[in-house]
Amino acid sequence: MRQRPGDDQPVQTLRWREGRLEMIDQRVLPQRFEYLRYDRAAEVAEGIRAMVVRGAPAIGCAAAYGIALEARALQDAARDAFSAGLDTGFAVLAASRPTAINLFWALKRMRGGWRASQHLPVPDIANILLGEAHEIAAEDIRINRAMGAFGAALLPDGARVLTHCNAGALATAGHGTALGVIRSAVEAGKSVSVIADETRPFLQGARLTAWEMVQEHIPVTLITDNMAGHLMSHGEVDAVVVGTDRVAANGDVANKIGTYMVAVLAHRHGIPFYVACPLSTIDLEVPDGAAIPIEERAADEVTGFGVHQWAAKGVQVRNPAFDVTPAELVTALITEKGVLMKPGRDSIARLFSF
Amino acid sequence: MRQRPGDDQPVQTLRWREGRLEMIDQRVLPQRFEYLRYDRAAEVAEGIRAMVVRGAPAIGCAAAYGIALEARALQDAARDAFSAGLDTGFAVLAASRPTAINLFWALKRMRGGWRASQHLPVPDIANILLGEAHEIAAEDIRINRAMGAFGAALLPDGARVLTHCNAGALATAGHGTALGVIRSAVEAGKSVSVIADETRPFLQGARLTAWEMVQEHIPVTLITDNMAGHLMSHGEVDAVVVGTDRVAANGDVANKIGTYMVAVLAHRHGIPFYVACPLSTIDLEVPDGAAIPIEERAADEVTGFGVHQWAAKGVQVRNPAFDVTPAELVTALITEKGVLMKPGRDSIARLFSF
Repeated sequence: MRQRPGDDQPVQTLRWREGRLEMIDQRVLPQRFEYLRYDRAAEVAEGIRAMVVRGAPAIGCAAAYGIALEARALQDAARDAFSAGLDTGFAVLAASRPTAINLFWALKRMRGGWRASQHLPVPDIANILLGEAHEIAAEDIRINRAMGAFGAALLPDGARVLTHCNAGALATAGHGTALGVIRSAVEAGKSVSVIADETRPFLQGARLTAWEMVQEHIPVTLITDNMAGHLMSHGEVDAVVVGTDRVAANGDVANKIGTYMVAVLAHRHGIPFYVACPLSTIDLEVPDGAAIPIEERAADEVTGFGVHQWAAKGVQVRNPAFDVTPAELVTALITEKGVLMKPGRDSIARLFSF
Repeated sequence: MRQRPGDDQPVQTLRWREGRLEMIDQRVLPQRFEYLRYDRAAEVAEGIRAMVVRGAPAIGCAAAYGIALEARALQDAARDAFSAGLDTGFAVLAASRPTAINLFWALKRMRGGWRASQHLPVPDIANILLGEAHEIAAEDIRINRAMGAFGAALLPDGARVLTHCNAGALATAGHGTALGVIRSAVEAGKSVSVIADETRPFLQGARLTAWEMVQEHIPVTLITDNMAGHLMSHGEVDAVVVGTDRVAANGDVANKIGTYMVAVLAHRHGIPFYVACPLSTIDLEVPDGAAIPIEERAADEVTGFGVHQWAAKGVQVRNPAFDVTPAELVTALITEKGVLMKPGRDSIARLFSF
């Protein structure tokens, strides 16, 4: 337990210290709270792949810092070597995880920063890229606060809000998307409580969402993923709020595996199903959910948790990390530009037209 | 790994050896395969509570043997002491777990055996009660084979069958209810494969169903509970077969927590949802699912698994062990008397009238 922030200090998922990126190791929370340090793009890519950092917006920020680190490491190199090295950094980061669009969005933005500054001396480019990474992270927090304010208005006082996975401060640069809505509701004086799906196999709900809420004294009840339907059928859930890794042009929502089952059950019970979704998570180039790549991860995540392996030897395994919730099941997208009820192709397109 | 049965030997969940009941310790499978030994009713009740043995039919058999053990232990006592002791045995076993009706069904049957033999010398009563327990176990296997034959006919060749929890040999005296349908289909020459929900929190799917299927070389794929919807939406599930702990007079089905979510998803995707249900599991005295008592178990099952605890400290927990699937979502009940399509109050009542 070192460098643990005080109860009143916001969680800093990523931070820039002495020329390096530091990220909370989310694989070992809440048993251990510790930062790992990164100097190069390839290290950051491995951190993303291994889920030291996870959550679509946080992955985007990490990738941006990965490019900034690589530029910094190469700032004394000749321009050709710098360019070749940076290109490799972009490639290795883009290959780290396939589903969350924020990763590609952030890399595209960093490439834009590079292109705009390519006439400058290499050290200046490196400085500009670091500034761009800082701006992406700062902007993420501003956007989460804007979504939080819009989303909080949707929750009645006393609401019991079910969430799946962790779309909290740990999934972003701060405040969170789905949990940002909860935090903003609490800041607005509402009494809300959280029901956290444990979210197998990586247990983001049991480990991360529960930890964030306990730290801030927001009431939180942990359930296994298969209990959500039972609670809904007993009238114990007033709303669902989740984050997302990619929203297609038609409003289909890719999010952590299990989100689809929650959405179907919420629909059956007339419970609103909200998706906290910064515009950077909407991918207009993907027509619908069927075209979103779904990452399949290693079998040992499903046969146990970490070193504790319990499944029968010899069993085959499936491990899709995400699923797609069709737009028809989404009550509203909560964005930094406002709440989009019954999202569809036309209304989503309009979000980008002003 | 001691006393492990050979690949060709059926799993003996409960067995009578040298005047004692032996039960496989299902808490430690598949890492360890070992039998625990029981001499008294109270010990068996604790074994049921702690889930050394679980699964509605197996709990019924264990309770019957618990009474037989108690009668045997008291067979040299005076009649009054024997009667008082046996009454206590009935009470302590009835209090072990509340949801599965087979427990109460078996105890009622053992009490009937006692009543019918109460004019006999005490040692003879003890012998009769042991015979009755043996008969309950033997009958369970016969019933499971009958259900298996009826259920197997429902599965097309090549069927990929999703099951939740473990309704296998380990949940019964042998062959299994839901997995009995699978086994009978395989014996009939059909090529079927199993998709096993891991079934948090006790992991009956990952540990027990996967183990049973691997032992018998029946193809089995393990998923976390929240992946079932994703697989269904991709056309990867042809049928669902589950067991049950109690069926109400109107056809509502209580089964392991999470069954309801599977049923709702199966309904959405037009996938048949079958419940393997011996008549002893139907409780005509309970009008509908709302009247079935749902056991709430200890928090530490949800905050981790066994000694491995991972959830954030301070989180609240819900742990309902069962849920209720309304009859409208049940394609058919598979019983030892045949397959009951679209089960309802009238058709269920008729099952008991001939």
